[in-house]
Amino acid sequence: MTEIAITRPGDADVLQPRVVDVSTPGPGELLVRVAAAGVNRPDVMQREGKYPMPPGVNPTPGLEIAGEIVAIGSEVAAYATGDRACGLTEGGGYAEYCLLPATQALPVPDGLSLIEAAALPETYFTVWANLFDTGGVKRGDTVLIHGGTSGIGTTALALCRAFGVTALATAGSDDKCRAIESLGGIAINYRETDFSEAVSTHTNGQGVDAILDVVGAKYFSRNLAALARDGRLIVIGFMGGTTAEQVDLISLVLKRAHVTGSTMRARSRSEKAAIATALRDQVWPLLASGDCTRPIIHKTFPLADAAAAHREMESGRHIGKIVLEVNAEVAGTSDVASVHHGAGQ
Amino acid sequence: MTEIAITRPGDADVLQPRVVDVSTPGPGELLVRVAAAGVNRPDVMQREGKYPMPPGVNPTPGLEIAGEIVAIGSEVAAYATGDRACGLTEGGGYAEYCLLPATQALPVPDGLSLIEAAALPETYFTVWANLFDTGGVKRGDTVLIHGGTSGIGTTALALCRAFGVTALATAGSDDKCRAIESLGGIAINYRETDFSEAVSTHTNGQGVDAILDVVGAKYFSRNLAALARDGRLIVIGFMGGTTAEQVDLISLVLKRAHVTGSTMRARSRSEKAAIATALRDQVWPLLASGDCTRPIIHKTFPLADAAAAHREMESGRHIGKIVLEVNAEVAGTSDVASVHHGAGQ
Repeated sequence: MTEIAITRPGDADVLQPRVVDVSTPGPGELLVRVAAAGVNRPDVMQREGKYPMPPGVNPTPGLEIAGEIVAIGSEVAAYATGDRACGLTEGGGYAEYCLLPATQALPVPDGLSLIEAAALPETYFTVWANLFDTGGVKRGDTVLIHGGTSGIGTTALALCRAFGVTALATAGSDDKCRAIESLGGIAINYRETDFSEAVSTHTNGQGVDAILDVVGAKYFSRNLAALARDGRLIVIGFMGGTTAEQVDLISLVLKRAHVTGSTMRARSRSEKAAIATALRDQVWPLLASGDCTRPIIHKTFPLADAAAAHREMESGRHIGKIVLEVNAEVAGTSDVASVHHGAGQ
Repeated sequence: MTEIAITRPGDADVLQPRVVDVSTPGPGELLVRVAAAGVNRPDVMQREGKYPMPPGVNPTPGLEIAGEIVAIGSEVAAYATGDRACGLTEGGGYAEYCLLPATQALPVPDGLSLIEAAALPETYFTVWANLFDTGGVKRGDTVLIHGGTSGIGTTALALCRAFGVTALATAGSDDKCRAIESLGGIAINYRETDFSEAVSTHTNGQGVDAILDVVGAKYFSRNLAALARDGRLIVIGFMGGTTAEQVDLISLVLKRAHVTGSTMRARSRSEKAAIATALRDQVWPLLASGDCTRPIIHKTFPLADAAAAHREMESGRHIGKIVLEVNAEVAGTSDVASVHHGAGQ
């Protein structure tokens, strides 16, 4: 089969196709003929050699896929060959076939294409685990989402709308701010206003109950300032650096803020399985019924053009998800244009 | 009555007696004839003008007292005049009489003197709320306590021993390290070893489940390094500064650390009431039975010598609590020498 390997740390051109053997699924694993694979910011960091890789994972990029199950390892009861599934991989999604732990697989929600389904796992696992589980966000809360038009951002906005959570979200252009509003969020253009002050204005000085942050160091102090009493700051990315300076512990203590963070890859299989169960029970029905907005697909690229997909992500132009189309026959490409059109407006 | 006022921000000499009217208890309040009042580090910071005072509190120092109830406001069913009680004040403990919200009062544990009882509330409320409640520490966990011989430290060690929690604790002298060991803790002399490395050695590189920290900025990064995966850092003091530099968010995220903090004074009355209930149910019986070590009384001072008590705390010599004796007749002074002797060895 063909996969896209990171030939060495570097820019997008280091992503190159190569031919490798198809793996055999071990106990608890599914082998999936990949229809589509999501592209995520950690893939770009991994390509650059900047992602802290947990031990034992597949070094081929690709954290999420959707496709058809073609072989099943022992100790798997919930799936049969021929089923369509999506899921969170242990790496290796940029390929024609990919292993998937059965506990990290989910059905394709009714009415969604495989391209849309491939765009779900990484951001839904991440947002659910961090904002709703660790962050304890509940109906009636107000949250702040940085990078509101990223894959994480659009997913967070969809989940907040579905669960009755008021979401403020930052972005850097009018187009992106309109996209945030179309997803039910309150947009803050961070180029025109200090987000911390905008939060204060929108919350009558109370601050937000939780912040989902992909920026890290650069926003750390302003994030603390934007939190409500007992607010939770959850750091899941470092686009603005990893070393926070001048952290005011008095402010943290007086508002009894909670600061934490996580990466999805570093979670154990049992933790990922628990998140998958929660998503299957609480979120997948809402995606099927339309009560949770379908994933926003910015653009698809053929698997062989993974480098172009990375360049698109690095450009920062995208609104929603970038997806690699691996097998057009089963991916259901025809859905994509309408989804994209609907979301971008 | 006589109280000790902070005449202006400054050194210990600004603490001066003055004569004021005795207050009348309002709804939900008790008026206590004070037998003894605990001295705490926040009193020193308040005297220096460095403590962020919540609005509406009594500016007279004194966060904890024990004594005899002499008058009761409306809406109080649980107490009668003549009862002995201890409790967490809203300020004003350095006085012959002090108001106490009934929901923040607790009985004097059987067998303890009023001097010992006055040494309980501030540190027991603080350690319980932060380490056991917020910090979620449970039997079998391993924790790190900074300032192991302070009032907070000795209380944390007593509670850890009572609840089956392994406690490492820092101190700066051999005497203090022996006191930590006599309280069941594992002592780390921070002048001789990097506490973060000592934690690693004692935990086989795993780190501790929680850290109760009164140092703040100076220890922040080493505290993060000393945490186990999913570990909790709880900042409750700033003896080493308030502004943390070079906070490594990668390390925080990869070990999924939780950083939080609080002050007791900023908590609402209903929060304090919930802590009082938990202490009455889960801890007070252990103090009465001897399954939780009695408070360590370093030294007592007459109320009029509050300045000397503050100087003693500022010297850093103390092991355990410093207490003001307000009314020797009811305070039960005779107990103290033996307690002190027992604890210091």
